[in-house]
Amino acid sequence: MKDLSKLFYPGSVAVIGASENVLKWGSIIISNVLDGGFKGEVHPVSTSNETVYGRRASKSLRDIGAPADLLIITTPAATVMGILRDCVATGIRNVVIVSSGFSEAGEEGRRHEREVREFALANGLNVVGPNTMGIANFKEGLHGMFSHVRLKKGGISLMAQSGNVGNQIMYWAEQQSIGMSKFVGSGNEAALMCEDYLDYFHGDADTSVIIMYLEGVDNGRSFMEAARRTTRDKPVVLLKGGRTRVGTKAAMSHTGALAGRIQIFSAAMEQAGVSMVDSQSEMLTLAAAFDSMPLPKGNRIGVVTLGGGWGVITADECEERGLTLPPLPEDVKARLDKMLPSFWSKGNPVDLVGQPDPNLFRESVEAMISSDAYDAVILLGIINSFKTAMRLYEATMRLGKPVEMNLEDMERTLDDLQNVFLDNIADLMEKYEKPIYPVALVAQADQPVVHAPKSPKKYNAIIFRTPEEAVSCLAKQYRYSRYLRKQGRKP
Amino acid sequence: MKDLSKLFYPGSVAVIGASENVLKWGSIIISNVLDGGFKGEVHPVSTSNETVYGRRASKSLRDIGAPADLLIITTPAATVMGILRDCVATGIRNVVIVSSGFSEAGEEGRRHEREVREFALANGLNVVGPNTMGIANFKEGLHGMFSHVRLKKGGISLMAQSGNVGNQIMYWAEQQSIGMSKFVGSGNEAALMCEDYLDYFHGDADTSVIIMYLEGVDNGRSFMEAARRTTRDKPVVLLKGGRTRVGTKAAMSHTGALAGRIQIFSAAMEQAGVSMVDSQSEMLTLAAAFDSMPLPKGNRIGVVTLGGGWGVITADECEERGLTLPPLPEDVKARLDKMLPSFWSKGNPVDLVGQPDPNLFRESVEAMISSDAYDAVILLGIINSFKTAMRLYEATMRLGKPVEMNLEDMERTLDDLQNVFLDNIADLMEKYEKPIYPVALVAQADQPVVHAPKSPKKYNAIIFRTPEEAVSCLAKQYRYSRYLRKQGRKP
Repeated sequence: MKDLSKLFYPGSVAVIGASENVLKWGSIIISNVLDGGFKGEVHPVSTSNETVYGRRASKSLRDIGAPADLLIITTPAATVMGILRDCVATGIRNVVIVSSGFSEAGEEGRRHEREVREFALANGLNVVGPNTMGIANFKEGLHGMFSHVRLKKGGISLMAQSGNVGNQIMYWAEQQSIGMSKFVGSGNEAALMCEDYLDYFHGDADTSVIIMYLEGVDNGRSFMEAARRTTRDKPVVLLKGGRTRVGTKAAMSHTGALAGRIQIFSAAMEQAGVSMVDSQSEMLTLAAAFDSMPLPKGNRIGVVTLGGGWGVITADECEERGLTLPPLPEDVKARLDKMLPSFWSKGNPVDLVGQPDPNLFRESVEAMISSDAYDAVILLGIINSFKTAMRLYEATMRLGKPVEMNLEDMERTLDDLQNVFLDNIADLMEKYEKPIYPVALVAQADQPVVHAPKSPKKYNAIIFRTPEEAVSCLAKQYRYSRYLRKQGRKP
Repeated sequence: MKDLSKLFYPGSVAVIGASENVLKWGSIIISNVLDGGFKGEVHPVSTSNETVYGRRASKSLRDIGAPADLLIITTPAATVMGILRDCVATGIRNVVIVSSGFSEAGEEGRRHEREVREFALANGLNVVGPNTMGIANFKEGLHGMFSHVRLKKGGISLMAQSGNVGNQIMYWAEQQSIGMSKFVGSGNEAALMCEDYLDYFHGDADTSVIIMYLEGVDNGRSFMEAARRTTRDKPVVLLKGGRTRVGTKAAMSHTGALAGRIQIFSAAMEQAGVSMVDSQSEMLTLAAAFDSMPLPKGNRIGVVTLGGGWGVITADECEERGLTLPPLPEDVKARLDKMLPSFWSKGNPVDLVGQPDPNLFRESVEAMISSDAYDAVILLGIINSFKTAMRLYEATMRLGKPVEMNLEDMERTLDDLQNVFLDNIADLMEKYEKPIYPVALVAQADQPVVHAPKSPKKYNAIIFRTPEEAVSCLAKQYRYSRYLRKQGRKP
């Protein structure tokens, strides 16, 4: 297995082709490294600029002094082989080739790429790319890439064969407050292949979930083995581009990769314990769920809902995805009977018939999650229901009726109460080692998807936007949990 | 066919059970009517309150004077029959029964509901509900319902058998700036049935798309006939709750409706030209697309993308949903060759390889949409790409490099440019009578989904959040267009 630790944890970074031309790669990368909180040394290298963003630029790699742990190349394809030779001469071992103009660009490019591959193998260089948008380690503040995102730290590491797909996933993660650990765009995979990154993330202590966007795998067997090794310890979530004839054609013109036949590939992946997803957004939410919650140990689901319709929709979704909704055991029913209004549904889903009272929800959830009859609980409609209640107070105020409390204070108080409620969800997940899936009544546009309790806890509560999203995550987490058990691992 | 015009366009509204008890139905409804911009007369009716929100309350319906066009009842089930008799005595013909405690609440409730049904039929009353969250007409500012949403005016009318599903859809519409025309919660459908509302929306000049959430249909044949009549003129989008055994059980305990076997129901609906969807969010976006764009007349799709990966994902999605990506005709290729950088993909998807230049996108889109080879164009990644460019300038500023322009001005300028670009999309759709589907690079949380051009145009541009969402809409709009053609209608 290749040692990629200095790629992701370099003490120093050099950028060749560094410039201040804002929209060029040579500026985008170095400004991102300098602005992103990286604590190590940063060396701009440029033949034409004396300084770059206030740093003196070296004329060549030899001028830097001690070899940089990581070199990022942004100069044209034709310059790359010369630079790689300099790397060997100066002791640089980890290189990211951002430059394009290789196998994606015709016959000459393919020849260039073979040269890079052979040289890297012969000299033991770790080469990322070419034609990649870069590499990142959010915990280290290392942003050696195109995307100027600033993410929360989390356990999700991403490998993408497409820069723009990687870019979008990271922007979405930022928008939704989903924490990440690392990113690498594997580009054309001249030397380091997708299975190398998978193996590295497998062994990386800061990575708890691995997500991958793949268009093609050169060595199916080797990738499959890496996947099988990894999924015994960590969930792997995979989105395959180039699933169809047309998509494959688009993928070939784009990365030069040969996309495999999807049915065979998917079946093999599922067999290796990989969670296959259909879209980028599903990939990210599922990864956040893996990173934030315990796995369901079975498929028996309890549902608590503010309104009947959503209970129906959720029951349908569960049934369609192989989850069951067992009836309420007598002891749970008795416990709920004591606290719920007489007209409650007395079945699963537990329908609270429009009572947006967090206490009722908390008690109902605990009654169900503590019962041996359920492996997970879905919670519909209490999150953000106070926002709709606020509208009622606002309307009456406008109609001239004084409300005892300042509305801003009231909203803040209700928001605090909701945060306490979500903290409690995290506590319950830890207490019973079972997952709980709260779905917002109406997801707020500016609301984090991952609710991190004020004092860090073992788990975080995730706010799902729709019942479909929650059930889909639950079903895939259950599937992975079942896979682990079959492998003799504890979920 | 029943005349429901005064239900949706009343000149005056009375609310029985009106109160100032903020969280009670009697307050929620009347405060919503008073606060929501309704221009007609509003009459609170209450035996216990002298005034309600500054309006003198009548003791009974007889005290109002002229009969209200619409009466909303919020008092307990036991009072309803008496009130209905008063309606007949005082000439009120349109009634919304918000009160619960009917067929959803056991044997006695079912008896009450039968009484309501028979009385309504015998006396020609239009009765909505019982157990409904109300009725709305956004153009008229009429908010006779629970949800205190304030929506833009649009062509979408919604009928929901579940109040909480209706509530969520309207809040989402508000959040996404999707305009709506009308809402009705049909509740237990004691008298007015889902097909009555469908027929009414069919004939309503302010409705251009009808969306429905149904759990059960009492009279399948009659609903089917109403659907078939309607879809010849207007798209109908339907989400069925209670698709599975478990969901059906949940639906029965909740509305008392008998959910039909879903396979038979869905097949019959598709045959009647109804667009079936799997989730609330899909329902709303598809409805917005129907309301905002021309229908695709065929399934031949052109794709323009900022990056390869998204092109692949989109090509896959198209192929999986029965859409095709024909190669570029020579004339289109020649036209694109003139303006694109030499390394462009020269195929469909047209890959602009990271050039976020709105001019290139506009020209590429027009080259494709004007060609007889394509029925629709999907546009990936240009929308909001300026937001990622802004990050580059912000970083260089923080690194001490002065940027010639004030960044706020720059962002405003780029945002204006984007609005011009979206206006142009609306123009192109009108010019060629073909739909264009822009997908945002990263959807902004606070960004309207429907972009209404400054000066109203025939069509609005919709900003899709993901390629899946765009392709799914496109495929369903194409399906409906094909249905219309088979019916001898012009799409």
